[in-house]
Amino acid sequence: MYQDLRAEAEDGIGAEIFALTAEIFPICRSITGDGVRETLRHISSHIDVDIHEVPTGTNVFDWTIPREWNVRDAYVCDGSGRKIVDFAASNLHVLNYSIPVRKRVSLRELKQHLYSLPEQPDVIPYRTSYYAENWGFCVPHRLSESLREGFYDVVIDSTLKDGALIYGEHVHKGSSDDEILLTTHICHPSLANDNCSGLALLTHLAKRLKGKNTRYTYRFLFAPGTIGAITWLARNEDRVALIKHGLVISGVGDGGGPTYKRSRRGNAEIDQVMAHVLKHSGHDSTILDFSPYGYDERQYCSPGFNLPVGMFQRGQYGKYPEYHTSADDLDFIRPQHLRDSYTIIRTALEVLEGDRRFQSTLPKCEPQLGKRGLYAAIGNEKDGDSKKMAMLWVLNYADGKHSLLDIAERSDLPFAIIRSAAETLFEYGLLHV
Amino acid sequence: MYQDLRAEAEDGIGAEIFALTAEIFPICRSITGDGVRETLRHISSHIDVDIHEVPTGTNVFDWTIPREWNVRDAYVCDGSGRKIVDFAASNLHVLNYSIPVRKRVSLRELKQHLYSLPEQPDVIPYRTSYYAENWGFCVPHRLSESLREGFYDVVIDSTLKDGALIYGEHVHKGSSDDEILLTTHICHPSLANDNCSGLALLTHLAKRLKGKNTRYTYRFLFAPGTIGAITWLARNEDRVALIKHGLVISGVGDGGGPTYKRSRRGNAEIDQVMAHVLKHSGHDSTILDFSPYGYDERQYCSPGFNLPVGMFQRGQYGKYPEYHTSADDLDFIRPQHLRDSYTIIRTALEVLEGDRRFQSTLPKCEPQLGKRGLYAAIGNEKDGDSKKMAMLWVLNYADGKHSLLDIAERSDLPFAIIRSAAETLFEYGLLHV
Amino acid sequence: MYQDLRAEAEDGIGAEIFALTAEIFPICRSITGDGVRETLRHISSHIDVDIHEVPTGTNVFDWTIPREWNVRDAYVCDGSGRKIVDFAASNLHVLNYSIPVRKRVSLRELKQHLYSLPEQPDVIPYRTSYYAENWGFCVPHRLSESLREGFYDVVIDSTLKDGALIYGEHVHKGSSDDEILLTTHICHPSLANDNCSGLALLTHLAKRLKGKNTRYTYRFLFAPGTIGAITWLARNEDRVALIKHGLVISGVGDGGGPTYKRSRRGNAEIDQVMAHVLKHSGHDSTILDFSPYGYDERQYCSPGFNLPVGMFQRGQYGKYPEYHTSADDLDFIRPQHLRDSYTIIRTALEVLEGDRRFQSTLPKCEPQLGKRGLYAAIGNEKDGDSKKMAMLWVLNYADGKHSLLDIAERSDLPFAIIRSAAETLFEYGLLHV
Repeated sequence: MYQDLRAEAEDGIGAEIFALTAEIFPICRSITGDGVRETLRHISSHIDVDIHEVPTGTNVFDWTIPREWNVRDAYVCDGSGRKIVDFAASNLHVLNYSIPVRKRVSLRELKQHLYSLPEQPDVIPYRTSYYAENWGFCVPHRLSESLREGFYDVVIDSTLKDGALIYGEHVHKGSSDDEILLTTHICHPSLANDNCSGLALLTHLAKRLKGKNTRYTYRFLFAPGTIGAITWLARNEDRVALIKHGLVISGVGDGGGPTYKRSRRGNAEIDQVMAHVLKHSGHDSTILDFSPYGYDERQYCSPGFNLPVGMFQRGQYGKYPEYHTSADDLDFIRPQHLRDSYTIIRTALEVLEGDRRFQSTLPKCEPQLGKRGLYAAIGNEKDGDSKKMAMLWVLNYADGKHSLLDIAERSDLPFAIIRSAAETLFEYGLLHV
Repeated sequence: MYQDLRAEAEDGIGAEIFALTAEIFPICRSITGDGVRETLRHISSHIDVDIHEVPTGTNVFDWTIPREWNVRDAYVCDGSGRKIVDFAASNLHVLNYSIPVRKRVSLRELKQHLYSLPEQPDVIPYRTSYYAENWGFCVPHRLSESLREGFYDVVIDSTLKDGALIYGEHVHKGSSDDEILLTTHICHPSLANDNCSGLALLTHLAKRLKGKNTRYTYRFLFAPGTIGAITWLARNEDRVALIKHGLVISGVGDGGGPTYKRSRRGNAEIDQVMAHVLKHSGHDSTILDFSPYGYDERQYCSPGFNLPVGMFQRGQYGKYPEYHTSADDLDFIRPQHLRDSYTIIRTALEVLEGDRRFQSTLPKCEPQLGKRGLYAAIGNEKDGDSKKMAMLWVLNYADGKHSLLDIAERSDLPFAIIRSAAETLFEYGLLHV
Repeated sequence: MYQDLRAEAEDGIGAEIFALTAEIFPICRSITGDGVRETLRHISSHIDVDIHEVPTGTNVFDWTIPREWNVRDAYVCDGSGRKIVDFAASNLHVLNYSIPVRKRVSLRELKQHLYSLPEQPDVIPYRTSYYAENWGFCVPHRLSESLREGFYDVVIDSTLKDGALIYGEHVHKGSSDDEILLTTHICHPSLANDNCSGLALLTHLAKRLKGKNTRYTYRFLFAPGTIGAITWLARNEDRVALIKHGLVISGVGDGGGPTYKRSRRGNAEIDQVMAHVLKHSGHDSTILDFSPYGYDERQYCSPGFNLPVGMFQRGQYGKYPEYHTSADDLDFIRPQHLRDSYTIIRTALEVLEGDRRFQSTLPKCEPQLGKRGLYAAIGNEKDGDSKKMAMLWVLNYADGKHSLLDIAERSDLPFAIIRSAAETLFEYGLLHV
């Protein structure tokens, strides 16, 4: 199916993902609320999305769906009535999940509700208070420091009431019920890399799969971080065994990394595939062992599930200064990085789709490739032919025990070359499944 | 039990061990004889010691308890009657286990019985002749070289007659019969590091265990090297299966190492524990594979026993110039090194005592730590909290397969932090055994 | 049996192998033909050789024995009748397996049949066309470039008709039917290192085995590359299970390497043995993983056989510039390299012959070596005695699970020292089999 992957990948995919990223960037999202609904509407203009609403109060494992949060406006005015902090300028300014507030406060009280980064005095940090009732504003440290004694009017025009947690699913049916889960979080407000980029990349990946015959069924899940993944797992507990491979993605537009974090299993097929693809990607990539902190792999890899789900991103979260600040804006990401991330993920899917265990039909000694026109006529030319070498590797290891990926790793050749050699040999009747 | 380990360790332990080392340093010990009895009397003033005497001629596996050796005096006089070598000045001067001798000899004959180190001309070497009847004197090479032609009077006022091999045992009963064996050799004469330091350290370790409730039973064994260990094994063959972990120690007062030599099994729990403790000790430690040469691990790890017993010391024996010479005196060791050695061993015991396999009571997705007050209220603060991380590691790996030590290694966090997190989670009902 | 291996090896073996190499160097060989018969006659003057002739047209697995090729003369004359390329000067000049030709050709047509190496303009390359009917000449690139327009007379007085594929076998019977296969290719024309050297080395190795009592049966196989190995395997399919270890050798006279390429199994005993021998050989050797390209290990290690057969040579084929050119002549190889290669192979056979699993008769604690005169009388001498250490290693690991080779690897001592210690301990009744 993925024969033309690379050509496809280069065909404007970076620009398309960037455009959708920019489109959903301004929306104010949280783990619940209308921002999630609006984002899913944008995604739905590209692919079919099943939207699920799970009511406030529903128990999902150890957790409970919280009240739904929406915010219309929020600001701080100084004594002269001038808005010195304004939600309209950046939705990061409001502490995510702030309860409504409208009052006049002293500088001292205000400061107890201001969040800033002394070491990065010009950016607005992204902060949340989902499960502890609180209100607050996130501001550049330079602003916070410049405030003078006096009274301030603070207004957060938010609502926190019974509603729903919302998530979206898109399924591409393959010839098998075995699933590949591709998921990303939909709960962050105006942060371009983390995670408008992930939402846009998965949307366009799903879009390009449309109409293709695949071996696996692909499940695309757009859900709020943590509580969304937990909700999905609670509602799909009886069918998670169908998930044979999975990737959590986020932060795919910056120029860092790429980074792959192994599943808790450590040597699942997805772990091997990602290591192989990154090794041959031409990037200086990093492979991390699983740790129980990060994105929703925390839930998929909890010991009761232990699913073969890894995490992919570019620069490691928390390690780049723009992370979770207003500096993670549309200038921070680039179409070519989005395209490269797409290509890596797409190539990994190609490996999963194409991996097989073949058996040689002539396992004793080498088959005579020459009489089939598969071998150079003049012997002992020095220059090796990677196609010929790939055929020899496949024939020698086509013993029913080694997968094509195993052979690609063993021979240090890219999977695509090994798979292509296997296809030729299969055509010539030299391999059977 | 070991909650206050570090505080305890710093509370004068180095000085206490040093004091006992200094007290037993002057005694002339051998593999048999009154020096062993006197040393055990000093140890008995701190802890209860069962003293065993095994008669000369008793068969212990392939060996036989030799005759008991005692020495009252020994010297060499030159022609003018001047004592040029005197046992009273250093008991290292007499070849250990020398038969009695009293005669006038030529320089030539004398030299056949002198042992010295040409490459270290100012020190007295330590030499023995347990199983080949011989007499001799160990002297600085400079002295040996200065001797002039003439006759010399040699006197060794020793006895070699039926008696006993002596060893001492102290047992601290734990709640289980499973034992941790801690042993050190008691046969070396006036050598401070090797091994007055080991005898003193184990004595004070046993003393500080007094009154503590422990999981394991601790067996402290003070026995002569080789023949003592063989004797103990021969007399306890039916109960060695109780030994779950063991350490041979010696040379714990110098500033070298620390060094741990793995048990023959190579990956016994004690091997894992010592590697973990040394990695987090702040010292530049060395871990050696088992080899069949060294201290009494040779016997405990002989193929018919193959016990999980490793060896701990500071600088590697035979690698520092003071080893087995008169330069291994009280100036060569320091209280702070004794204290550090004590802390390492004590921390290892703490790990063995505290290691468990837990299971999460909520294995599907993460438990909501926030609602239990175990998680920061404001989300997305960048600074990681090692206690929080330790809880996440424990919850994720509490699958009944990973021990706390496994989790400590996997997370690269010290065992004490992982154990403390597990205790908190257990209190909150999030773990069961 | 191999007690005097090293002495033997130094006793003129390099000169003897060189002499036979030089003797067979001028013969024009191919995968069939009289050159193979003549070469086997030279070998037969040293050892008994069973010569097998397999008729043209015989099916061997996926292959068919080709027609037999012989060449009497071949040359190219320029317009003035001067021979500018002459088979009599070097048999490399004729494309191996060229069909007969006798005609006048234009420079353009001639050039379509000339093979040369632009990057090595002064040497004649070695090229073949076994399975595609063709004629051609191999020439220095400088000659090819100097040819002027005009007509040339080309003559290849060869025959290609029904005949046989020829190979030779020599078997040295051991006390067991288990076989060690030692094989090398006999199909290359005048190339000294590849492979007159291999033919000569195996001949003299077989010659020196004569009359020796060995544990294994040794099968020496001199066969054409690829088709010869395939033929042998096809005719011996029912008995290949007897092959317990094997080495393909070639190129053993140059100063490169030495190089060992593991069997497809990767950790067969021959792989362990060769790694051990090379580590202790004093050479800066290279160990390569199996790959399905190279010499006849390709056939022995095809998945339907997967025999424990590795490949030994000096410099890696294809990596040195003389490879497969007229520069691989008698000046390229040296007697001392042939001797060193012989010694390595011979030492590996010694390990295979001598490897055993012993058990200690006194596995509990150490046996008392001193009372048997096997241990130094004076204790605590610093200088280690490698024989004593070897005895301790053997006693400790003589548990029926570790072979002597395992112990040699574990102790980092050469196999010969470990085996000698084991022999001593066996004599003293301290080991049983």
